[in-house]
Amino acid sequence: MQRIRTADARNYIGQQVTLAGWMHSWRDLGKFGFLVLRDGSGTFQVVLDDESEMQKLRDLQYESVLEVNGTIQAEPRAATGAEMHQARVQVLSPVSEPLPFEINKKALKPGLDVFLNHAPLGLRHLQKRALFRIYAQIMAGFRQYLTDQRFVEIQTPKIVGSATESGANVFCIDYFGRPAYLAQSPQFYKQIMVGVFERVFEVGPVFRAEKHSTGRHTNEYVSLDAEMGFIQDHRDVMAVLTGVVRHMFESIKTSCAAEVEICNIDVPSVGVEIPALRLRQAQDLIFTRYGEDCRGEPDLAPQHEAWLCEYAHAELGSELLFVTHYPTSKRPFYTMPDDEDPSLTKGFDLLFRGCEIVTGGQRIHRYEQLLNNALQAGISPQDIDGYLQAFKYGMPPHGGFAIGLERLLMQLAGLGNLREATLFPRDMERVIP
Amino acid sequence: MQRIRTADARNYIGQQVTLAGWMHSWRDLGKFGFLVLRDGSGTFQVVLDDESEMQKLRDLQYESVLEVNGTIQAEPRAATGAEMHQARVQVLSPVSEPLPFEINKKALKPGLDVFLNHAPLGLRHLQKRALFRIYAQIMAGFRQYLTDQRFVEIQTPKIVGSATESGANVFCIDYFGRPAYLAQSPQFYKQIMVGVFERVFEVGPVFRAEKHSTGRHTNEYVSLDAEMGFIQDHRDVMAVLTGVVRHMFESIKTSCAAEVEICNIDVPSVGVEIPALRLRQAQDLIFTRYGEDCRGEPDLAPQHEAWLCEYAHAELGSELLFVTHYPTSKRPFYTMPDDEDPSLTKGFDLLFRGCEIVTGGQRIHRYEQLLNNALQAGISPQDIDGYLQAFKYGMPPHGGFAIGLERLLMQLAGLGNLREATLFPRDMERVIP
Repeated sequence: MQRIRTADARNYIGQQVTLAGWMHSWRDLGKFGFLVLRDGSGTFQVVLDDESEMQKLRDLQYESVLEVNGTIQAEPRAATGAEMHQARVQVLSPVSEPLPFEINKKALKPGLDVFLNHAPLGLRHLQKRALFRIYAQIMAGFRQYLTDQRFVEIQTPKIVGSATESGANVFCIDYFGRPAYLAQSPQFYKQIMVGVFERVFEVGPVFRAEKHSTGRHTNEYVSLDAEMGFIQDHRDVMAVLTGVVRHMFESIKTSCAAEVEICNIDVPSVGVEIPALRLRQAQDLIFTRYGEDCRGEPDLAPQHEAWLCEYAHAELGSELLFVTHYPTSKRPFYTMPDDEDPSLTKGFDLLFRGCEIVTGGQRIHRYEQLLNNALQAGISPQDIDGYLQAFKYGMPPHGGFAIGLERLLMQLAGLGNLREATLFPRDMERVIP
Repeated sequence: MQRIRTADARNYIGQQVTLAGWMHSWRDLGKFGFLVLRDGSGTFQVVLDDESEMQKLRDLQYESVLEVNGTIQAEPRAATGAEMHQARVQVLSPVSEPLPFEINKKALKPGLDVFLNHAPLGLRHLQKRALFRIYAQIMAGFRQYLTDQRFVEIQTPKIVGSATESGANVFCIDYFGRPAYLAQSPQFYKQIMVGVFERVFEVGPVFRAEKHSTGRHTNEYVSLDAEMGFIQDHRDVMAVLTGVVRHMFESIKTSCAAEVEICNIDVPSVGVEIPALRLRQAQDLIFTRYGEDCRGEPDLAPQHEAWLCEYAHAELGSELLFVTHYPTSKRPFYTMPDDEDPSLTKGFDLLFRGCEIVTGGQRIHRYEQLLNNALQAGISPQDIDGYLQAFKYGMPPHGGFAIGLERLLMQLAGLGNLREATLFPRDMERVIP
């Protein structure tokens, strides 16, 4: 008999069907018992009243994998509107060891470290798994929007011959006896590919050997990268990014309504434009509104980002805020300088609920200017030969951005730590499971 | 003025528009000249007859980036049905150095090594870029089919604490002073995630430190991975894989018709079922039909795969062929043994036009059996602790497969070397560009 999913069971009232899943919970009342079966689609209550069937469950621990065959009956009191009766049980995989923590309660009790040590089990928790369905939808929404805007998906190498953007914070590999590195971003490759397709995107892992141990950093994460040619300036890139974020959020509301509810997430609506401040304006505003003088600093500290988002939410009605025109000194050598003040760049960050989730900007497209900037940054042209080749043979004005997928999810779901938005996080302490 | 794409230009006949792109070719006839402009959407002819405008192009090399403003006129002799007249040229990025090879002819002349050294330029060739649009469509088709089948997309770590499947052929990283490894496949993680979502897929890089230097191996490639729970046996997995391949091929025909033509690709139709042979049957067949006795060998050599595909095409009308029941000795420890002959496995390969492009099978789902197999394979349970954890806490019968994306494209397009189907290939000799 074909197995059906628990989410579809209510369509089979009066029929005998087979369900299969995990023993999510089990309440033994002696003469009868209530089994809650969890499968990929949801949970479903199975009523057992046959002594020999109940006996099969009595020796099992939660998370045993079962197949149950029985008749679906309408049950208005059940959340699913139905339950299974006259159930016959077959044990597919028995679990004999008690779980290290409960995963069938609304809240997950263990602390982050215990949870991460037991992620293969803990991720089965209904709220956790709902979170990572939203994670999947963010990727799908990203790709869908950009594909509709004629971006072409690329896959670029993660093993690279030289450190992508700088020598620091890069993992070194033994590559057949000589050193190679893990890509810190697909930056150079996505720019090269603008020369081929005009508009490209990539979803893939990036690796940062940063010795941070903060709640907003890990050493491997997924970057949602896009790059586009024939722009006027960075504002064209910001406009596409605004469309991407709007579409991702709308697609979560549409495709993950149940998951949004389980995770108790407030998905913001994104207006036609996301408000933007220049870094100097932002620093003036922090001084005026919050009394801290960070004017002249080359970058924003986490507290500054939090204040700016508080301001944007309260005064501009937006949970997202662009900050533009970071100084040249804090941006990579390929960032396009501002026309009026070349000590500033056409680079931007996008802040969301108090944290930077995107970095982007316009890039330099002329070969001579890029070569000079590389030399000034102390980068040997030989080390970035393939990258420079694209510019030697003609590159259009272009720019792009990189969204930190886990950062975005962390901020969206109001999580306290980036590790909670990562399936199997990697940090200085953790390379398993 | 808003720039339009060359592919849309024919909709603007009689209107003044701006195009922008690369100087694909330029024919100077003295009093007038023909510029072919290439952008992301195609190529378009621009007629120049103004001396000062033509002078702007005379000092430029091909691939200079231009913006041209002029009037679109119908021109039945042009492939696009239109061309631009009264053009005014603006040079966005001049190229001053001659190209190392021509990229505006139908055939690309340089050999593979010269091409790969100049990939940032060479990939702009119309046939090359068409190929990598098909590459993008394969990924899109893979995801679309599996999402429709309720698979959930995951992203799993590429830095791992121990070698995924065996200690051999793994790249070692310096991870903050201690060793870590690059994932050879997402195998363990996708299985773990079957415990969470039932059905999962992942598109991502895998890393193999194999010291092969053949046309069908590279050291980093993209793996299209899927894994599904609650199967009867490996045939359920083969059925989903058949659907995936069929859908990918159909979506290429639908969405990449122009690219298929440019690359002169024959995209096969996939029937309801792909024929399947057991390894032993396949070896008997090779002996009978081709006279080579490989009966009893644990695996197929490339020539055997070629013969089997020749047979399947000629006798069964299929360019795809499953080979099943490889011996336990040649399959990883987690492969499900055959019910009748435990020296064989419920593992399969999918061959396409003479080359294996997919490996898959049913996996062991019971904890004790998996633990025993790991021990017998000489794998320390501590090293795969997180993986085993999923099984300790209940896993359903499951299986999956991994498609080599570049292999698939190589076979589809009839390319002689995997490197031709990889944007920026990585092998023992090459980590750049």
